[in-house]
Amino acid sequence: MAYIQVPEGVPGIRSLVMFRPETGKHLYDLAQALLRGESPLTEAERELIAAYVSYRNDCMFCWSSHAAASRCLYGDEKNIVDEVLNDMHRSNVSDKMKALLNIAGKVQILGKEVTDEDIAEARKHGADDRTLHDTVLIAASFSMFNRYVDGLASFTPTDPVVYEEMGKRMAKGYVLPQQQ
Amino acid sequence: MAYIQVPEGVPGIRSLVMFRPETGKHLYDLAQALLRGESPLTEAERELIAAYVSYRNDCMFCWSSHAAASRCLYGDEKNIVDEVLNDMHRSNVSDKMKALLNIAGKVQILGKEVTDEDIAEARKHGADDRTLHDTVLIAASFSMFNRYVDGLASFTPTDPVVYEEMGKRMAKGYVLPQQQ
Repeated sequence: MAYIQVPEGVPGIRSLVMFRPETGKHLYDLAQALLRGESPLTEAERELIAAYVSYRNDCMFCWSSHAAASRCLYGDEKNIVDEVLNDMHRSNVSDKMKALLNIAGKVQILGKEVTDEDIAEARKHGADDRTLHDTVLIAASFSMFNRYVDGLASFTPTDPVVYEEMGKRMAKGYVLPQQQ
Repeated sequence: MAYIQVPEGVPGIRSLVMFRPETGKHLYDLAQALLRGESPLTEAERELIAAYVSYRNDCMFCWSSHAAASRCLYGDEKNIVDEVLNDMHRSNVSDKMKALLNIAGKVQILGKEVTDEDIAEARKHGADDRTLHDTVLIAASFSMFNRYVDGLASFTPTDPVVYEEMGKRMAKGYVLPQQQ
């Protein structure tokens, strides 16, 4: 049970933004701009970075839902998502995505972990300023979402089918849920 | 020098949101709602939580600027800020604030670190649902801001006078800087 009184049965961050829509609105707007707005990274790639960071932060609600959204957006290539979560370095993502996921993993630990060499490696494989910016901000923002969701012990479903449905909805975009 | 090409000489997060105002807008709106909007916590207390988390994340730009904003808002009681940064448990903040800062420190590590006992201790000293919510979201959001600022190696001034001036501006609120 969540540490504060949120709408019953509503999972994860949805229950928290319904408790406090004044801040929730900006959290959903940020997710929409960052994960669905214009970017050199595809929506599938951005969801993969979100899932990867959330998995490293052991936030089951966030990694399960964003992995589901990423699988949905990758379509026929959806196996890539589980490969990355299981072992990113041995997965079949491109060298560019490996370099970006490496940066995201450093940001997940702490901002200062990112080095000149990490950035140079990503640039070598074609990452431009906007790609680097979006990678770091996605990793940073999920360091927030994960802590918000677990820090208040919000409801975390365990049925994979629930996440599959959630992923389909999320693939269409992030819209603040209405209050009950 | 920052890892991406941001406006020269502009410090910290300001340079990053000028690079990408589409996401920057929501980051500033979130800070304004969370740190200046209606809350059972005073603005000084909320800035103190932000400074405390940023200090623990070793993000000099964020802790220096939010400590300055908190000192400005605490006025005659401004010494409390440095007491908390030096040794929270021995500082002269109330038992309620100690319980909330303890929760913020747990969130800084990871959401799951927060326990039923941490929440019960805060409630014992009068913290309600909104107080707990805002404490966790401030701690979570600074886990993002800190990583964004340091993960892209944005410009970090070292002169305390610069932060004092910044704190006075921040005490008035968070408004997205215009692009140069």
